[in-house]
Amino acid sequence: MTKIHVPADHPRKDSLDIRERIIEGHEKDIVATAGLLAHGRGEAFDYMIGEQTNELAHMACRAAVAALLSAKHPIISVNGNICALVPRDLVELSELTGAPLEINLFYYRAEREEAIATALRNAGATEILGTHDRPSETIPELSSNRRKVDSEGIAKADVVLVPLEDGDRTEALRKINKYVVTIDLNPMSRTALLSNITIVDNVVRSLPLMVEYAREMRDWSAEQLREIVTGFDNAANLSKALRMMIDYLSGQAGIGPVEEDET
Amino acid sequence: MTKIHVPADHPRKDSLDIRERIIEGHEKDIVATAGLLAHGRGEAFDYMIGEQTNELAHMACRAAVAALLSAKHPIISVNGNICALVPRDLVELSELTGAPLEINLFYYRAEREEAIATALRNAGATEILGTHDRPSETIPELSSNRRKVDSEGIAKADVVLVPLEDGDRTEALRKINKYVVTIDLNPMSRTALLSNITIVDNVVRSLPLMVEYAREMRDWSAEQLREIVTGFDNAANLSKALRMMIDYLSGQAGIGPVEEDET
Repeated sequence: MTKIHVPADHPRKDSLDIRERIIEGHEKDIVATAGLLAHGRGEAFDYMIGEQTNELAHMACRAAVAALLSAKHPIISVNGNICALVPRDLVELSELTGAPLEINLFYYRAEREEAIATALRNAGATEILGTHDRPSETIPELSSNRRKVDSEGIAKADVVLVPLEDGDRTEALRKINKYVVTIDLNPMSRTALLSNITIVDNVVRSLPLMVEYAREMRDWSAEQLREIVTGFDNAANLSKALRMMIDYLSGQAGIGPVEEDET
Repeated sequence: MTKIHVPADHPRKDSLDIRERIIEGHEKDIVATAGLLAHGRGEAFDYMIGEQTNELAHMACRAAVAALLSAKHPIISVNGNICALVPRDLVELSELTGAPLEINLFYYRAEREEAIATALRNAGATEILGTHDRPSETIPELSSNRRKVDSEGIAKADVVLVPLEDGDRTEALRKINKYVVTIDLNPMSRTALLSNITIVDNVVRSLPLMVEYAREMRDWSAEQLREIVTGFDNAANLSKALRMMIDYLSGQAGIGPVEEDET
């Protein structure tokens, strides 16, 4: 694709830069074609939260980090889009929380697995689970490629961070009693509704934020962490996120955005 | 990309089938990579109008067809996404309204032009404007590839149908006094706000609907047609479309319809 230079003062520069990263990821085989469409959907919802991390997302990020830090076997599931967007933050979060990175793809191809593993290694990852040379097990509740999971990773994990998830998989993971933490810009999606903790935010902002929280909370006591996790109400959080979107749209509708047409 | 078979009873079958058409279009060079992301954004907004053509879109389609039928030199601008999704409806609408099809691309490549021209011809088109072998002029108000337009098409047109448009181009067309009709699922986009008639709907549903209206209205008098065009209030229509989205989200949030803002 033709590369378009985005001027520094363009009002949508951040969003367009992120888009370039996803398109580059697609060219490198990291991002599936369907991942480009999924990213576009995310853009629309991000627009409706003002492309900013709000207080609700902060609370969810804190709870998510607390859940990872207090887990026995936390794991971070990696797909193409998250790898293309925030590889370094994934590695850092993994190190700070002791949650290994596991590649798990819906559109599996050996080339994609390799491209993602390479990108993670380039970002500093030393251990990557979920690759084809690793011992694996299957999640019987799931029919897609994603059913194959690493024996040392998702298979034995108690807390799974699954950013940018599909609904079927979230449901399957919940059925086998995993505690699921997700990042999803659509507060109405099945993933958002079925997860234990849903961060309604753009991963480009929330992954770095989780890294910050992990740095701050890593030495907290098990009790302090547990308090944060149990004090988090996902249903309330999602409903508030949705209200914020409604308020945004209402603002757009209320100010009479359109000028009179001269017909 | 791996083709995924969508079962007939899948709750999102229509949306997934449409997505397959866009991805196929991308593989055939018809759709630009950025077009995949744009489609994803559209999916999010379509979801918020319940993936159905509502009464507002019906009114806008009727006005759009009336504008095309009453124009001296109507034209239909064709990009990759619209060509991938509804090539046959484009051809039929073109025949019924006497508005030629003109290829006009943001991400221009000779291969893309050729792929789109071939798809249109396969769909029955006998005349295609905007190709590199045609006489052209430039729209000075526009800096992108899209500034080059066909001398017999957009250059001399009074009414331009530009489905799935970018804001800069809509603005440029309005500046040179074209009457712009667009189809855009985002009622807050610059394109939606700047156009004379904006159909807030999925092109997959609204193009066939326009064909139906064109068949019904093609023999109407100039006066009848003009009445429909002048009676259409784009500002009110957009504001109502936005209100419907707000009501949909409110329904999802379980808080009932939002009160009307007095502005």
